[in-house]
Amino acid sequence: MLVASVAAAQTKNSPGPLTLKEQGSFFVGGESKTVTQPGFGPNAPPTSGEVTVNQMYVQYQVPMKGGQHLPVVMVHGCCLSSKTWETTPDGRMGWSEYFVRKDRPVYLADQVSRARSGFDATAFLDIRQGKAKPESMPVIIDATHQVAWTVFRFGPKYGEAFPDEQFPMQSIDELYKQMIPDLNGTLGPQPTATWTQMSALAVKLNGAILMGHSESGFFPEQAALINPAGIRGNISIEMPCVTNFSAAQLATLAKIPTLVMFGDHLGDVQGGGPANWAQSFASCNTFVDQLKKAGGDAEMMHLPAMGIKGNSHMLMQDKNSDQLADLVIAWIDEHVERKK
Amino acid sequence: MLVASVAAAQTKNSPGPLTLKEQGSFFVGGESKTVTQPGFGPNAPPTSGEVTVNQMYVQYQVPMKGGQHLPVVMVHGCCLSSKTWETTPDGRMGWSEYFVRKDRPVYLADQVSRARSGFDATAFLDIRQGKAKPESMPVIIDATHQVAWTVFRFGPKYGEAFPDEQFPMQSIDELYKQMIPDLNGTLGPQPTATWTQMSALAVKLNGAILMGHSESGFFPEQAALINPAGIRGNISIEMPCVTNFSAAQLATLAKIPTLVMFGDHLGDVQGGGPANWAQSFASCNTFVDQLKKAGGDAEMMHLPAMGIKGNSHMLMQDKNSDQLADLVIAWIDEHVERKK
Repeated sequence: MLVASVAAAQTKNSPGPLTLKEQGSFFVGGESKTVTQPGFGPNAPPTSGEVTVNQMYVQYQVPMKGGQHLPVVMVHGCCLSSKTWETTPDGRMGWSEYFVRKDRPVYLADQVSRARSGFDATAFLDIRQGKAKPESMPVIIDATHQVAWTVFRFGPKYGEAFPDEQFPMQSIDELYKQMIPDLNGTLGPQPTATWTQMSALAVKLNGAILMGHSESGFFPEQAALINPAGIRGNISIEMPCVTNFSAAQLATLAKIPTLVMFGDHLGDVQGGGPANWAQSFASCNTFVDQLKKAGGDAEMMHLPAMGIKGNSHMLMQDKNSDQLADLVIAWIDEHVERKK
Repeated sequence: MLVASVAAAQTKNSPGPLTLKEQGSFFVGGESKTVTQPGFGPNAPPTSGEVTVNQMYVQYQVPMKGGQHLPVVMVHGCCLSSKTWETTPDGRMGWSEYFVRKDRPVYLADQVSRARSGFDATAFLDIRQGKAKPESMPVIIDATHQVAWTVFRFGPKYGEAFPDEQFPMQSIDELYKQMIPDLNGTLGPQPTATWTQMSALAVKLNGAILMGHSESGFFPEQAALINPAGIRGNISIEMPCVTNFSAAQLATLAKIPTLVMFGDHLGDVQGGGPANWAQSFASCNTFVDQLKKAGGDAEMMHLPAMGIKGNSHMLMQDKNSDQLADLVIAWIDEHVERKK
C-alpha cells in the first residue's frame, strides 16, 4: 500500500493501467575495436584487448494494438538521454508512454556515445597514457543551467521566464538532472554511427517513423540519406536544417512524408549560443519548400502560427505536451499511415 | 502486423500481455557544481556555469498487485548499465520484467557516473584546458571482451567455454554491446553518491529491498550504513565482502535480512584479474557468519551447493535466469515479507 501512495505522488495524473503486448531492449550495430589501457584493477599491468563501440541502445514497448500502427523511433538531443521522452520534470506522462497509450509501438534510442549506448573511450585512455596530447581530447559538451535557460528558451535571459512559458519552470531542477555530458565529439566523421544505426533500426522494424529533436532533429533525414528503405516518415523537432542538398538527395527525402515542428519565442532569447532559433526556423522553412518542390509531402508546424503559444525548445516536456503529441499523432495518421 | 512479427523474433518466449499500474523515471539526489569549459559551439569563448552532478537515474514499473509487495531496487555492476536486468543477450525476458510479472515493483538505477545518470566531466574538461595534468585523469575502466570472458567466468580462458556453462554463449556479442566505459573514478571519496542515493531511494519508497551485483554487489550494505531507515532487505550477488566492520556496523546490518548469491566455477578461471572469485566467496562466507553471530538473518546461496551447476558471473542473464529469479523471490517472501 505504501508503494501505491508513493507512486501516486510521483505522477500528477492517473491514466489508469497500461497493458503491453511486449517490451524489452536491444542494440543496433556495433563493432570490435582494439584498445590498450591501464590494467583492470589496482597494480595490474596495461592490457590490450577488444571492446565493442558504435552500438546503439534501444528500449521499446509495443502496445496491444501495436500491430495496427507503425513504430515511432524517438531520439533525444544534445546533453540529454532517452529520459527526454519519459516522465516529465513535473511528473506527468512523457511522449513515450503517451504514444504507447495511443497504440503506437515506441522505440527510444540513446544516441551512440551517450548513456546506455556507451562511448568509445580510446582518445581519453590515450591521453592518460601519454600517447596523445590533452588538446586532442574530444569535445565534451557539459551544458550548464545558464546555457540551457536561453538555448531551451525558458526566458529572455537566465533567471527570467517568459510570462506565457509552457515549460514547467517550478520543476526546472529536474530537467537539469537530465542534462549529462555529450560525447558526440568521440564519434568518427559523418555519417555518424547514430545516423547509420537509425537507418538500420528502421529496416529491422520493417518500417518505422523516425523522430529527432534538437541535436538529433535532422538525424532522421541524415539516416534516410544512408538508407531510406525502412523509413516511412520523418519528424524533425527544432534544429537547423540543411538547405544545400543535391537534387538526387532531395528526391530521396521527398519520398518520405516529413513533419518539422517549432515552438515559440524563436527570436526572443539573448545569449542562445550556437542556437540561433530564428535562423534555424528560416532554414527549415527553406528545406520544407525544397521538399515540396521536389514533389514531397512536407509540413512546417510552427506552433504559434497555429495559436499555440509559449512552447519552449523542450516542447515534449511542456505543460501542453499531450496536446502537441496529439498533433504529431494526427499528422502520422493523415500523412503516413493513410498512405500505407 | 509487421511490428508484431519483428517483436516476436526479438524474444524467444511469449509471456503474454503485461499490465502495469504505473511506470516512469525520476532522479534521486544531485547538486549544483560550477564548471568552466570551452564554449558551447564553434568559436564560442570559454564559459562558466553550473551543472548538476551526483544525481541517480531510476526507471520503474509497478505491476497491478505491486502494492502487496516491497519494491526491489536493482543496481548493475562494473562497465554495465541497467540493461543488465532487461532483455537477456539471447532475447529472453530479464529479471526486471520477470520480477514485475511476479507482482514486484521494480526500480532500475543507473549508477551515478554511468549511462543516464551522467557523470561529472570536470576533471576531463580541466585536462583539456591545461589546468590539470593528463595523469590526473580519473580511471576509465573499459573492460575488454578478453577480460569479461574470465572475470564473468564463461570459461577457463578466453575463447574456451565451460562444458556446463549457463551463459548463452551464442549471444556473447550482445553482452559485449552492453559493456560501456566505467567512470566511477570520477566519483568523490567514499561513501560515494551511488550509495547515498540508494539509501535515499529506499526512504523515498517507504521501504525497499536493495539488490547489487558485482561492482555494486556490496552497495546495499554500504547504503544501509549511511541510512538503514528505508532498507527492508539486502541482496548481494557476486562481489568481495567487507569482513572488518565494527560491532556497531554489524549490529546495523544484522537488522536487515541479507541474501548473498554466488554461481559456479569460482576457482576455475585463469586471468580473472582483480576478480579472485574464490577469495570473494570466502570473504562473503565470513561476512554471512558475522551477521548471524550478530543476530542477523543472513543466507549464503551458493548455487552449485544447491545442485545448480554452471552459472556465470552474469547469472541474471544465464539460461536458467528464471529459476534463479524464483529463488530470490522465494527468499524475499520467506525472509523479508513474512516478517513485515
